Amino acid sequence: MQPAERHGRHFQEELEQLKTRLLEMGGLAEEQVRLSIKALVDRDRDLIESVAQSDEPINRLHIEIDNRCFTLLALHQPMAVDLRAIVSAVKINTDLERVGDLAINIAEAGRRYAQHPPVKKLIDIPRMASIAQAMLRDALDAFVRRDIALAQQVLNEDDKLDALKTQIFRELLTYMLQDTSTIEPALDLILISRHLERIGDHATNVAEDVIFMVSARDVRHHADENQPSSL
Amino acid sequence: MQPAERHGRHFQEELEQLKTRLLEMGGLAEEQVRLSIKALVDRDRDLIESVAQSDEPINRLHIEIDNRCFTLLALHQPMAVDLRAIVSAVKINTDLERVGDLAINIAEAGRRYAQHPPVKKLIDIPRMASIAQAMLRDALDAFVRRDIALAQQVLNEDDKLDALKTQIFRELLTYMLQDTSTIEPALDLILISRHLERIGDHATNVAEDVIFMVSARDVRHHADENQPSSL
Repeated sequence: MQPAERHGRHFQEELEQLKTRLLEMGGLAEEQVRLSIKALVDRDRDLIESVAQSDEPINRLHIEIDNRCFTLLALHQPMAVDLRAIVSAVKINTDLERVGDLAINIAEAGRRYAQHPPVKKLIDIPRMASIAQAMLRDALDAFVRRDIALAQQVLNEDDKLDALKTQIFRELLTYMLQDTSTIEPALDLILISRHLERIGDHATNVAEDVIFMVSARDVRHHADENQPSSL
Repeated sequence: MQPAERHGRHFQEELEQLKTRLLEMGGLAEEQVRLSIKALVDRDRDLIESVAQSDEPINRLHIEIDNRCFTLLALHQPMAVDLRAIVSAVKINTDLERVGDLAINIAEAGRRYAQHPPVKKLIDIPRMASIAQAMLRDALDAFVRRDIALAQQVLNEDDKLDALKTQIFRELLTYMLQDTSTIEPALDLILISRHLERIGDHATNVAEDVIFMVSARDVRHHADENQPSSL
């Protein structure tokens, strides 16, 4: 098979469809995160249940995207940047599926939290959620546009999440030490902040994949010496 | 390139080396988990620091394995079960790297835990660790031996981890409610039990990849593994 053939119009169309599906999946995952936090803040039990039980669309897309990646690899035998794009898509797909799972974990913690009086007005947790959602959105935009600068920006945002997580932990610990009736609900808020931190980690993974895909440079583990890999 | 060529001896050797490296990485990750829990139980600060700072070998293998997968995909354009094995290797590699990160998270929580008097004798946490380690080992064995039954066994083990996690949580909550001085160290034990649960999740991911890798072949073709088969 000639390169011209295997990188032909059909292949590029399939690759575009793959990206569209990944964006769709990213949109679903981000929306699930947004709703899980809205349900927590509003103590909205119906919304909590709706989020906790809505993994089906994301799981279906997860399988579909995986299949698309396999088909592209098997039928078109792509090289270089296209190969890296498809393998990145496999990884990103996994990350997005986990984000969907984490939104469900948040809803489950929110369900327990709603059974107690509120510990405090929630400000930092929604802030963490906004940052994590934006990171996810930007990381996927960076993937589709092959935009290294935007991917790098996502990596920089991660420190903010980490700082907020630490701040939330300290504050809630104070509540717990002062009033044991807050221990159980505060624990759930701590867990939720960890889930949001992990959503940020998944966005970071996506951003790292984008940088690798575009530059063939591995920024993970700070191992890059600004050298393209041998491939 | 002819099928005979791309599934030739060289390719099979490379594939074997990839598996060996994955096993090596799995062994490292499992050992890190074991040491992180040993350090926690023994309150061994030197060991805690040694685990907390030893991500380098796993990170190096992570990048090496990823590169091997790319090279195999790019140079040999494998089909069917070999293609699925390599894409699975990419995913498993990611899972194992996360297990290494989680061992470090356990060491970090263990470092904080050692600054307080012990909350209780640790029994269930080492038990969780043993189960998670065995799951990881079995999942990788299942990958190398393409053993669906063993992979299925790994999936079944996950419930045990979940039950232990819930039991640990309930017990520690009782301590926290009775004595606020246990709140901080108990929180770290709760986090550690969650890290172990996630290590089990990663083993589960590996087992699911094995089932997909092996059974997708059965569904499509009953081709001999040593023969190139169409998708």
